[in-house]
Amino acid sequence: MDSHSKSGQFWKIKQVTDSMALVAELCGHFYKMGWVSGTGGAMSVRLHHLGLIIMTPSGVQKERMTAEDMFVKCSDGSDFIIPPVKASPHKPPKCSDCNPLFMKIYEMRNAGAIIHSHAMEACLVTMIRPLSKDFRITHMEMIKGIEGHGYYDELIVPIIENAAQEGELINSITEVLEAYPRTNAVVVRNHGVFIWGESWISAKTQAECYHYLFDAAIKLHQLGMDWSTPSHGPIKRSS
Amino acid sequence: MDSHSKSGQFWKIKQVTDSMALVAELCGHFYKMGWVSGTGGAMSVRLHHLGLIIMTPSGVQKERMTAEDMFVKCSDGSDFIIPPVKASPHKPPKCSDCNPLFMKIYEMRNAGAIIHSHAMEACLVTMIRPLSKDFRITHMEMIKGIEGHGYYDELIVPIIENAAQEGELINSITEVLEAYPRTNAVVVRNHGVFIWGESWISAKTQAECYHYLFDAAIKLHQLGMDWSTPSHGPIKRSS
Amino acid sequence: MDSHSKSGQFWKIKQVTDSMALVAELCGHFYKMGWVSGTGGAMSVRLHHLGLIIMTPSGVQKERMTAEDMFVKCSDGSDFIIPPVKASPHKPPKCSDCNPLFMKIYEMRNAGAIIHSHAMEACLVTMIRPLSKDFRITHMEMIKGIEGHGYYDELIVPIIENAAQEGELINSITEVLEAYPRTNAVVVRNHGVFIWGESWISAKTQAECYHYLFDAAIKLHQLGMDWSTPSHGPIKRSS
Amino acid sequence: MDSHSKSGQFWKIKQVTDSMALVAELCGHFYKMGWVSGTGGAMSVRLHHLGLIIMTPSGVQKERMTAEDMFVKCSDGSDFIIPPVKASPHKPPKCSDCNPLFMKIYEMRNAGAIIHSHAMEACLVTMIRPLSKDFRITHMEMIKGIEGHGYYDELIVPIIENAAQEGELINSITEVLEAYPRTNAVVVRNHGVFIWGESWISAKTQAECYHYLFDAAIKLHQLGMDWSTPSHGPIKRSS
Repeated sequence: MDSHSKSGQFWKIKQVTDSMALVAELCGHFYKMGWVSGTGGAMSVRLHHLGLIIMTPSGVQKERMTAEDMFVKCSDGSDFIIPPVKASPHKPPKCSDCNPLFMKIYEMRNAGAIIHSHAMEACLVTMIRPLSKDFRITHMEMIKGIEGHGYYDELIVPIIENAAQEGELINSITEVLEAYPRTNAVVVRNHGVFIWGESWISAKTQAECYHYLFDAAIKLHQLGMDWSTPSHGPIKRSS
Repeated sequence: MDSHSKSGQFWKIKQVTDSMALVAELCGHFYKMGWVSGTGGAMSVRLHHLGLIIMTPSGVQKERMTAEDMFVKCSDGSDFIIPPVKASPHKPPKCSDCNPLFMKIYEMRNAGAIIHSHAMEACLVTMIRPLSKDFRITHMEMIKGIEGHGYYDELIVPIIENAAQEGELINSITEVLEAYPRTNAVVVRNHGVFIWGESWISAKTQAECYHYLFDAAIKLHQLGMDWSTPSHGPIKRSS
Repeated sequence: MDSHSKSGQFWKIKQVTDSMALVAELCGHFYKMGWVSGTGGAMSVRLHHLGLIIMTPSGVQKERMTAEDMFVKCSDGSDFIIPPVKASPHKPPKCSDCNPLFMKIYEMRNAGAIIHSHAMEACLVTMIRPLSKDFRITHMEMIKGIEGHGYYDELIVPIIENAAQEGELINSITEVLEAYPRTNAVVVRNHGVFIWGESWISAKTQAECYHYLFDAAIKLHQLGMDWSTPSHGPIKRSS
Repeated sequence: MDSHSKSGQFWKIKQVTDSMALVAELCGHFYKMGWVSGTGGAMSVRLHHLGLIIMTPSGVQKERMTAEDMFVKCSDGSDFIIPPVKASPHKPPKCSDCNPLFMKIYEMRNAGAIIHSHAMEACLVTMIRPLSKDFRITHMEMIKGIEGHGYYDELIVPIIENAAQEGELINSITEVLEAYPRTNAVVVRNHGVFIWGESWISAKTQAECYHYLFDAAIKLHQLGMDWSTPSHGPIKRSS
């Protein structure tokens, strides 16, 4: 029984370190996608059954991280693991500025993972319609990749205005999470996007769909087409 | 003789597992090309002499698959191999929604492999001419990469309208396969494209040519040029 | 002395096999650059001191080749090495359709390597000015990467019309090699480009500069700017 | 004490060779970003405490370098390490033409690393406004990645005119370093950009931000939007 429980401890620890390594690996992938260049962007994974939350560090090259670079928080926001200090020119470790925003999203949604991207397409899609309060698109197959949405549905993603500091976004994020109860993404004007899902797989694959749709919307806009309403010929609008 | 036939069995099994691994590897490649992001897209390979058909799973990250993730069907559509269940957050294995479409294409064409891509260029090329019933292009060297076509030929690929579910496309795919007996590709509006060939090499290399031509057509459209008829200066039209 | 000469033979053979492997490796690189997709494009390297010429095969996936896939010709065009036949679905080995064009370029120029690319930018740059007989650009730093050219020079690359078969281009290539004695590149309308240099390094790095300049020209054209004459503000024209 | 000091020597040497290898590795990365194609571009790292400066060679494929290819200079510009001569077709080693420009930047700024990029976006961003004396952008999250800048700030980067030889840029670079005391980047018209930081990390991550912003500016220009002043809707200008 003693050895059984010790073995249980081992597997718990391994789940944490494996997840830390996974976040590092995924960030390397997101870098190649152009989502986290220049140390921008962030990621978090929540280990529900362990009451732990992994977060990427701030100001660190996202494509050169290892498991060791990750912060691990308890559910109450207190520190569980702090990364070791690295030699100069590396800066002392600092948790992502998205920390309070990630905690708010976890509080208000049943998310298992959150991705914050600075992708050009997430940024530009808010600039081509500078007064819009949300991003809308319909009749694109990739909409089916977003939870609870079909091809004929109109996907609506709230856009909030940017602020000087990431932490200042907390009020507007809280508001849109209340105002848009179905949304699992929030776009920040001239900045990027937050996307979440019940697991890292759900967050990542939906993030790929959102970025695809942002990119399509910009390209359609450039081709002089309106992508937010189903007016593109002989296609049937859903009831 | 007994050992000879056993050895034959071994090579048959190895051909199946090698082909399963090849499909996983190729999907990783297609992901880098932007054809299968967000779990989108699919691939199938037919092993004629064994009467078996390999299909990718549904809703799985196409760039992170291994041979084990593949479905293998008998020619009559019954299951030969079902992938093992993976731990959460992976979903229980489910065969590609393209399954009935793939079977229909195998039935009506002598194909050895089929690729279904969600590439942006395959999607946008149908949106710039929302009422068009087919994609047309001529006088591009890459047309020579499509079976039975030369540089001066007009390549014609049928476009069908999209539907809420992949399976609902079966009637319109059947119709265009009959109406366009030479075509080895079908574009689905606001969705993507199906491309096939007598082998995985033929399907993949023709898919590369089709995506190149779609991309060129969009870029030419953006430059204000008409790419569907040979009106670009002193070039000779084939008889 | 006998062992010395045998050792000499060994190094000669090794140079050939190393060069065959290098061409395969470089083609994998060119594939990532978008120069040789869909089995398109080709490459050749000349081993002057051995009197041998390496050529890529026709209709083969350029990113999946190994040294074994290469053809090796003697200076008179006769076969020195023919690649082994591979199992289906691979086709029987066939030398590049560029073979006569490569031999003509080697005959008329002191080239050590030739690259034939199907890159989108090489194709489109001929389509935006369908009646132009040459591509012209000036006042771009990357022009300095082309042999014998400075920043203030006007780079001029002849454009020939495409034909149904690669071999039919031989007359027009011969003509422009005579008419443009300084050029180390020929663009083929709606098709691609041939680029050569005294070594594989010279051919590859100049090819990168040409592709960069083609891409810039298309983007400038799209931005409504004329890139062929130095009219972009307070810049000094060379004497 | 003797063995202690010898061990100190060892670590000094290892720091130099490690940094040489790092520059080679980073240049491979920059190549993939499109910053150093066709042997273009350059990089330098300064080892302050050792009084040494690493510089990339001239006319060498930046993605195929190893530590051995680097030049190492003393603070006074004299040679500390010269790379070994390689067999033909490699050229004899020659230090980057940026050498005097790098030395001037080190002299006038407290830089630990400098990157010189030929990226298309750095080139085009000077061409869309051919008479502009600087590049300006504001209200983009990625501006926060540039030292001393916030989201509401206007980032201003001086643009100098290009010259026939890299060395001829020294006067105009000196002038703008004096005229723009805050800048850690200088754009060269129709050529590229110089970017520096207190360490290789700072130089690289800021370079990523600058390239992102150049790219955004071109895309916004193409969409008919002015990116240099905060006129994009309900956004607050900083005091």
